[in-house]
Amino acid sequence: MNKVTVSRKAHFNAAHRLYRKDWSDAKNEEIFDKCSNPYYHGHNYELIVSVSGDIDPETGYVMDMKFLKDLIKVHIEDAFDHKNLNEQVPEFATRIPTAENMAVVIWDKLRPHITTAYELSVTLYETPRNFVQFSGPN
Amino acid sequence: MNKVTVSRKAHFNAAHRLYRKDWSDAKNEEIFDKCSNPYYHGHNYELIVSVSGDIDPETGYVMDMKFLKDLIKVHIEDAFDHKNLNEQVPEFATRIPTAENMAVVIWDKLRPHITTAYELSVTLYETPRNFVQFSGPN
Amino acid sequence: MNKVTVSRKAHFNAAHRLYRKDWSDAKNEEIFDKCSNPYYHGHNYELIVSVSGDIDPETGYVMDMKFLKDLIKVHIEDAFDHKNLNEQVPEFATRIPTAENMAVVIWDKLRPHITTAYELSVTLYETPRNFVQFSGPN
Amino acid sequence: MNKVTVSRKAHFNAAHRLYRKDWSDAKNEEIFDKCSNPYYHGHNYELIVSVSGDIDPETGYVMDMKFLKDLIKVHIEDAFDHKNLNEQVPEFATRIPTAENMAVVIWDKLRPHITTAYELSVTLYETPRNFVQFSGPN
Amino acid sequence: MNKVTVSRKAHFNAAHRLYRKDWSDAKNEEIFDKCSNPYYHGHNYELIVSVSGDIDPETGYVMDMKFLKDLIKVHIEDAFDHKNLNEQVPEFATRIPTAENMAVVIWDKLRPHITTAYELSVTLYETPRNFVQFSGPN
Amino acid sequence: MNKVTVSRKAHFNAAHRLYRKDWSDAKNEEIFDKCSNPYYHGHNYELIVSVSGDIDPETGYVMDMKFLKDLIKVHIEDAFDHKNLNEQVPEFATRIPTAENMAVVIWDKLRPHITTAYELSVTLYETPRNFVQFSGPN
Repeated sequence: MNKVTVSRKAHFNAAHRLYRKDWSDAKNEEIFDKCSNPYYHGHNYELIVSVSGDIDPETGYVMDMKFLKDLIKVHIEDAFDHKNLNEQVPEFATRIPTAENMAVVIWDKLRPHITTAYELSVTLYETPRNFVQFSGPN
Repeated sequence: MNKVTVSRKAHFNAAHRLYRKDWSDAKNEEIFDKCSNPYYHGHNYELIVSVSGDIDPETGYVMDMKFLKDLIKVHIEDAFDHKNLNEQVPEFATRIPTAENMAVVIWDKLRPHITTAYELSVTLYETPRNFVQFSGPN
Repeated sequence: MNKVTVSRKAHFNAAHRLYRKDWSDAKNEEIFDKCSNPYYHGHNYELIVSVSGDIDPETGYVMDMKFLKDLIKVHIEDAFDHKNLNEQVPEFATRIPTAENMAVVIWDKLRPHITTAYELSVTLYETPRNFVQFSGPN
Repeated sequence: MNKVTVSRKAHFNAAHRLYRKDWSDAKNEEIFDKCSNPYYHGHNYELIVSVSGDIDPETGYVMDMKFLKDLIKVHIEDAFDHKNLNEQVPEFATRIPTAENMAVVIWDKLRPHITTAYELSVTLYETPRNFVQFSGPN
Repeated sequence: MNKVTVSRKAHFNAAHRLYRKDWSDAKNEEIFDKCSNPYYHGHNYELIVSVSGDIDPETGYVMDMKFLKDLIKVHIEDAFDHKNLNEQVPEFATRIPTAENMAVVIWDKLRPHITTAYELSVTLYETPRNFVQFSGPN
Repeated sequence: MNKVTVSRKAHFNAAHRLYRKDWSDAKNEEIFDKCSNPYYHGHNYELIVSVSGDIDPETGYVMDMKFLKDLIKVHIEDAFDHKNLNEQVPEFATRIPTAENMAVVIWDKLRPHITTAYELSVTLYETPRNFVQFSGPN
């Protein structure tokens, strides 16, 4: 069989702040530095969602890219774009919105909508110089 | 004379919100749509500062790029990076932080530190798909 | 007044062929080389539409980027995307779809929808290494 | 041993159409949407060919990049560039030229020219937002 | 008439060193800092050559891109690529190879081969963050 | 556990030459072609350092990006940037500075400073079209 990985890039921008309510301001600033700014800062996030599976011999597709594009639109872009992650995205009410945690949350939100015939991997650029990748729990 | 334009790219990220205090929430949302989100959103801003002038025949430089890099660091990056533009940057206390207004503010902040022998132009990418350019008042 | 240029990037892909019906195949191949392939070839075109005008002091916008985005969508993307330029785009029935002619056609299609208070410029990337710019007839 | 992956980027552009002759036009449009346009559309394809192997202690090379560059030129660029994939590339006479099938065809065309001491992987960008990767049959 | 600017990107890499023989080592280091390293350093230079002129109504071209590509190959890439600019490129025997001077030299080398019906502009990226532009003497 | 790969991009430029002292000039030129130029040439190297490990549930970080950024600064950028690799970097006194060997050297220099709880991988772009990846000895 010919297993191919297909990837789709998407984009959203959001405000966030890295801090723990159970830490003092001084401790938050020591650990998270200027990322703990109480007035928030923000990013243009570039997201790559990659799905691996066998090519369907009838269509030549692993997965219709339009299906993947729409999935990202509904579950990620509509939920995160132009939002304050700490205040307006429920998954980050109790989890710090680091790029690492965001990649896990995005993976968790997409996984139920993609059948187990496919592997799923998520790459998230927080800035052009910092990015993370998550391929599921081990 | 050989007039050359030299350009330096820089980067900062920030949170912002587009709205007018003297407008209703409905009016703000009508005009600024999701950019008026009261909880803020944010961007990775890419900045290009361009300076035009004659080549100094002694050094072969129009301007030492290190001087330009440091100027951007002190006057723009230190002032804007990881900040909430509306709440923490005085220039936007009474001016809406659109990309257009930001380009003018950046130009105004840099201009006094560059002698009149040089022309100055500022290009600001708010997202990879939206950008603005300002070359001074006309 | 503060005149600023705002730019919006868009994308479409299309097939085309460079040839003149009134030339022999040999002449077409001599002038247009492999671009004259009778079975067509194609490109991912990257388009930048730039509009220059004064900042509206009330909104801080030169032009609402959403208006510009929608204008490009309706008049350019819907007309060109996934099309054969020679066979399916009326403007190229009698005009060779070179990047140069395409930039002029795009400018001509957008100009009537943007008031004369604004200047308009179009940049079109045919490949990452070849691009053209048109700012109106002189 | 020090196993390193070396990669080389290449570029070609081509026209194609996604459809099955044994399907009705309606069925083709339902499955392949505007990609089934009977007049074709096209793309600038960006290709990355990656070869993994041990560093030759004498030269410090895994493989001479010039050898890899020439291989891609002869077997892929000369065969695909400025072509109509459906009509002019024999491998797609009976196989739909989706990005997935193209990656497999490219891998199949290159594999015989690279000794089994090396692993081979192919990444193909159909657009800046859609790309696929194939590393051989499993 | 429809005046269009057509641009072609090219690439070369080279070693260089910024220094003046008539200055002491200390003075060279004060002015050119680590760029004056006597053992040289180097760059991947990205070059954009832009030519402005009227569209030829017969071909739809301002200039055949292949002509421009070949011109850059013969006069710039063959002369500069994989060279030590100070030691192996005659134009820099007595001129410091700053990006500014390089842009002027490239312009001077190309200008005689492009008729006066066209304007010529040269953009040179020394790094992804530093670039210069020269459009001819004023 | 949620194992995530975090990556940081960095940049340095340097001069180098590919050749073996124990080979004749003719043999060096046969194998390394213009890369063996005795006067050196150079590149802008883009470096991506990737570290894989479990998310720290307290901070939401796999590793503080600032720690990784500083590590690259001290051990790689300060050692390689604006240097002649053959003449001024001890690791290449007896090893040819190919991209492959450079990736191994960079990995070897960083590995002692990153605990064994993390996997380490190094990607090095010599030019935008040529790059290599090394993930440790096998």
